[in-house]
Amino acid sequence: MHHEHGGNIYKYKNDNLIDFSANINPYGIPLSVKQAMYNSIDLCVHYPEPNANELKNVLALKYNLKAENFFCSNGAAEIFYRLANVIKPKSALITAPTFSEYENALLTVNCEIKHHFLLKENEFNLTYDILNDLNNNIDICILCNPNNPTGKIINTDLMHKIIKKCNENNIYLVVDECFLDFTEKQSSVLYNKSNNLIVVKAFTKMYALAGVRLGFCVSYNVNLINSLSAFGQPWNTSVIAQQAGLAALKLNDYPTQIARKIKILRDKLYLDLEQLNLTVFYGQANYLLFYTSDFKLHEKLLKHNILIRNCENYIGLNKGYYRVAVRTEHENNKLIKAIKEVLE
Amino acid sequence: MHHEHGGNIYKYKNDNLIDFSANINPYGIPLSVKQAMYNSIDLCVHYPEPNANELKNVLALKYNLKAENFFCSNGAAEIFYRLANVIKPKSALITAPTFSEYENALLTVNCEIKHHFLLKENEFNLTYDILNDLNNNIDICILCNPNNPTGKIINTDLMHKIIKKCNENNIYLVVDECFLDFTEKQSSVLYNKSNNLIVVKAFTKMYALAGVRLGFCVSYNVNLINSLSAFGQPWNTSVIAQQAGLAALKLNDYPTQIARKIKILRDKLYLDLEQLNLTVFYGQANYLLFYTSDFKLHEKLLKHNILIRNCENYIGLNKGYYRVAVRTEHENNKLIKAIKEVLE
Repeated sequence: MHHEHGGNIYKYKNDNLIDFSANINPYGIPLSVKQAMYNSIDLCVHYPEPNANELKNVLALKYNLKAENFFCSNGAAEIFYRLANVIKPKSALITAPTFSEYENALLTVNCEIKHHFLLKENEFNLTYDILNDLNNNIDICILCNPNNPTGKIINTDLMHKIIKKCNENNIYLVVDECFLDFTEKQSSVLYNKSNNLIVVKAFTKMYALAGVRLGFCVSYNVNLINSLSAFGQPWNTSVIAQQAGLAALKLNDYPTQIARKIKILRDKLYLDLEQLNLTVFYGQANYLLFYTSDFKLHEKLLKHNILIRNCENYIGLNKGYYRVAVRTEHENNKLIKAIKEVLE
Repeated sequence: MHHEHGGNIYKYKNDNLIDFSANINPYGIPLSVKQAMYNSIDLCVHYPEPNANELKNVLALKYNLKAENFFCSNGAAEIFYRLANVIKPKSALITAPTFSEYENALLTVNCEIKHHFLLKENEFNLTYDILNDLNNNIDICILCNPNNPTGKIINTDLMHKIIKKCNENNIYLVVDECFLDFTEKQSSVLYNKSNNLIVVKAFTKMYALAGVRLGFCVSYNVNLINSLSAFGQPWNTSVIAQQAGLAALKLNDYPTQIARKIKILRDKLYLDLEQLNLTVFYGQANYLLFYTSDFKLHEKLLKHNILIRNCENYIGLNKGYYRVAVRTEHENNKLIKAIKEVLE
């Protein structure tokens, strides 16, 4: 069955719990998006538009591509399963640690998984060493940029070389950019027209729509996009998700504004965590990874109504690694205060 | 790509269109369900509960089974794709005509499809002849009860014999009961504990939640249920879908009340369509199939702001077959009036 993820607040039956275990924009759903969701409830007596065509048209305009380059999904997670089943790779390269749904998805087609271990000595950064692992024995490589749970961005020059190496070796390269909006960095797809490249994105984090389920992927490989569509029902995105997505895409400056706010909060949280003598790994997304020798920290924080992500079930990490979301200043201060009390 | 289904109102950009092409409860979303959906919007900043555990617990109570017997899905359609990919049948038996997503799903695993043709001479009823087609060359059989687009119920004695024959020949039997609530008939799963049987249901039609996407399946085969879960993400049902489902399941008498209202409306609509000299096939669900020699009827009705389902793309039907949903008395009268005008 599935590894346990962050964000399962339902286990605790505690209405006062602050959830630092899922990496969601702490400012919540933008008002205009929420309004669109309210307005869409009356439309739910109808099936959603098949294949989310209107949403794809708006995405196409935004990315200066065509609707045929997009596939919209029931959250980004659905895409990894469809990709695995459409491509049917025999062997895959993924990093460790990373988001565990890549591996779950690949295992549904009995794909052999090779892990490229990210090392603590390198602060879990992806290095040029990965190029040695990209050879013609690999059919697909899935990278998360910035990586979850480390928050580390892939260096742009390295990314170019990875794309090139994947092209030379006929490797499908899937880049999960679900957290990229928080970094103000440009998407890989915008500077590269490789037919082997698939970029995955979601409305989940930036627009705080985790419960709504809306993601998408972009590729120049239209045959692959068509295969992704044919692999499942045409109504995989709900009416509410489509309307929320359309409203979110109207907010042109929103991601940048949020990214700047989060950066300030994250840098403050980083310093505060360091002050507590934790080993903190600086990341560029809306979360931070740290290590402590107190292996029960997550359980102790629950008594302070704080839920953090215990990262011991990530391949490549072990006991003592935790991930915390960057939330509002007030909430982050509560987190720091609680950790301080627990560790004292 | 996908066959065109009913319910794609988005193509017509006509706010006055009455949609008879999708078979949705014309009374809309029950008020308490709608209220639950409104209330759930604020919860959407969180991921949905993985695997919809609370909803499965309530379903288990309702069906006097265990939560482990249920898999909740992003609409019923998702289930057919997961089943096909988990079971990987080499050959399948389905009827013709029937809902085309069964075939689409089976084709994703290159399954050979055998069609059991339902005959006009038999009013498209399923007969005991199907038992001859259920032999050990078949790995899976998918039946729709009542069938879409005919509305024909499978005779209970025949259903028992089908289940028995499937057991003897190790055939997975999938029974799609998405419209069964409209017939006041009992579910196959309630009177049979076969390990090969999977019953598929949805909130789509009875609760008018087509745009929300919520379905589920039930089976005594817990290993199969676990495999369905493992084949995709744990967050396949949205927060809003889960909350809508929980609210809908509190309305104990609602399906029966609606079924009785719809029966009266359907029988009236049947007689009215017959009066127009159409060949109408009596069905027990919330829709009726008919035949006319006017092959452009659907296009002509669009000018009267009426959308009906052109059934010519169903395998086993051809030009001139149309399906209409049973809607409110006022709307049904508009349909009859419009058809009358068109045919005159």
